[in-house]
Amino acid sequence: MPRTVDYDPARREILLIDQRLLPHRFRVARIRDYRAAAGAIADMTVRGAGAIAACAAFALAQGVQAFRGKDPEAFAAHARKVFRALRDARPTAVDPVNAMRWILGRMETAETVEEAKAAAVAAAREFADAQAAECRNIGAFGEGLIPEGGRVLTHCNAGRLAFVDVGSATAPLYAAWELGRRFEVFCDETRPRSQGAALTAWELARRGIPHWVIADNAAGYFMARGEIDLVIVGADRVVAATGEIANKIGTYSKAVLAKRHGVPFYVAAPFSTLDWELKSGAEIPIEERDPEEVLCAWGATAQGRRTRVRVANPDSPARNPAFDVTPADLITGIITPAGVFRPRELRRMRTRLCGPPA
Amino acid sequence: MPRTVDYDPARREILLIDQRLLPHRFRVARIRDYRAAAGAIADMTVRGAGAIAACAAFALAQGVQAFRGKDPEAFAAHARKVFRALRDARPTAVDPVNAMRWILGRMETAETVEEAKAAAVAAAREFADAQAAECRNIGAFGEGLIPEGGRVLTHCNAGRLAFVDVGSATAPLYAAWELGRRFEVFCDETRPRSQGAALTAWELARRGIPHWVIADNAAGYFMARGEIDLVIVGADRVVAATGEIANKIGTYSKAVLAKRHGVPFYVAAPFSTLDWELKSGAEIPIEERDPEEVLCAWGATAQGRRTRVRVANPDSPARNPAFDVTPADLITGIITPAGVFRPRELRRMRTRLCGPPA
Repeated sequence: MPRTVDYDPARREILLIDQRLLPHRFRVARIRDYRAAAGAIADMTVRGAGAIAACAAFALAQGVQAFRGKDPEAFAAHARKVFRALRDARPTAVDPVNAMRWILGRMETAETVEEAKAAAVAAAREFADAQAAECRNIGAFGEGLIPEGGRVLTHCNAGRLAFVDVGSATAPLYAAWELGRRFEVFCDETRPRSQGAALTAWELARRGIPHWVIADNAAGYFMARGEIDLVIVGADRVVAATGEIANKIGTYSKAVLAKRHGVPFYVAAPFSTLDWELKSGAEIPIEERDPEEVLCAWGATAQGRRTRVRVANPDSPARNPAFDVTPADLITGIITPAGVFRPRELRRMRTRLCGPPA
Repeated sequence: MPRTVDYDPARREILLIDQRLLPHRFRVARIRDYRAAAGAIADMTVRGAGAIAACAAFALAQGVQAFRGKDPEAFAAHARKVFRALRDARPTAVDPVNAMRWILGRMETAETVEEAKAAAVAAAREFADAQAAECRNIGAFGEGLIPEGGRVLTHCNAGRLAFVDVGSATAPLYAAWELGRRFEVFCDETRPRSQGAALTAWELARRGIPHWVIADNAAGYFMARGEIDLVIVGADRVVAATGEIANKIGTYSKAVLAKRHGVPFYVAAPFSTLDWELKSGAEIPIEERDPEEVLCAWGATAQGRRTRVRVANPDSPARNPAFDVTPADLITGIITPAGVFRPRELRRMRTRLCGPPA
């Protein structure tokens, strides 16, 4: 199985698993220039903070490679233009910006345009590899939490499709599976966009890991029956000062249910997800997205055509908060590439928890 | 707005709001004989315990009216045939059976076939009216719980579409609205069948009551922000001995969240929903329905054509429990046609809580 985001240096092409077509069709898109890469980020051919950061990193390298000439001033202006185009593809996402700034920094010591191009390609590769290594480390530290025969609940897709490879919440699953441990996974559908049913289920099926799709409404039922041993989710932001996390809407509900039933609740997060600036989860801005996401559902017809259907009453409005905040007291541990920590421990661990920007 | 289920004695036709077409198209189906009525129950043209009970009651009356002849033995055999056809339309539903048994009982004192036919029609009408009166009484006792400017969460459709009229969980809403109180309603989508988004939102829109459709995942977010003042849901069964309730999957999760946030959680139930036999909610059989309900979503295309789309990964399995059980400690009160009671009070109130079979 290819990486979610990769780069072919010989052909100067970015390779992306086309997530608009999943789970109904598997296709690797070849992206030939940075403008097309910006388009692929904007139209969600590639999605997930880690994956779009890696795509932007490779696209910056691809973009500067395409420069013809030797004038350093013109080259720098071109690089800035590429940077802006990629930044503006998903204006609220911070990971691509951080990744590209790091690459631009690595280019600064180059003495010629050609050296700078080579540095950009090397740095983008390093960025992607470092991200995959972080996810593997999350897996190494997290796999021990999954008991033989365990039943693990996850929410949304914090999987390999959201990163270069391996994923965050899925990393302990893949690591445990490779060690021969056997378990099963309950995938919350994750309305309104159904990433759990569509993407996490697809990933697990490809790896042969037994799993069930369940309605978001059913998690409490299975916990009450003792059929869930462990919850692992990803995060969009971890507030290091307090141990609060922001993640896909519905995460908070699952954490409240897990607490009631004594089910351990873990959050997997690479270094780039840790926020060292915010003082409280209340400061996290919560995006309210297009109500159509709630009023409709997306999928494939019996003929395999991708379409959407209007599920709700046509003249009813909707509210669509995309994220919620889960307080530290509901979180058993944060699985990081440097180990598993209690949420309130994070702030004392800053030196261990600042890796490269991946 | 017509009743969900009604009867036209002159034309001997049952009138049903066709719920298969809602919310995309409004049509009243005219059902001309009991076999068609059984078909309408089976194919969910009519759904909801109260509504199918009333449909079966009218269909039994309709069926016996169609008998030609004066022989009491042949008439009784015909009535049993009609009863069985209607009973078998939804084999697990108990409400239609109870309703039809009550009507057969009312026919027993008739001295001629014609008298028995008349008794059946009168009894079916009485049954439907009694059910509507029960729902109005739920409204009268429950409306005071809704504060001016309040924000009420409901789950699934325990509305007028599930009964002859008024509904159970919606009864306090309609009663408060008619008294001029103003408030708004959050309608959980209620996956997998999305009855909240499709049916409850439709009902409220028709009555002009402000409402929002939300993903099932979002209820905890709104409670955490203090945007929900009250929860009112229906029930498929209330265990009078313990105060536990069984209701649509996801009800339990909302009750757990309400408890955490100090939000009052009410269950509205007519007499027929009270179960005086069971000793514990653990005895309630929980139906696991077709996994396709979880893996797909139903709605209308942009062209208005009703269809389903496959949301989930095509080779993934699903689990689909249709109901969950909410314990008494999470329930603030049970709104009945005889008043609002604490869940553990019910067993002492049996004489007040046994109405007609509606």
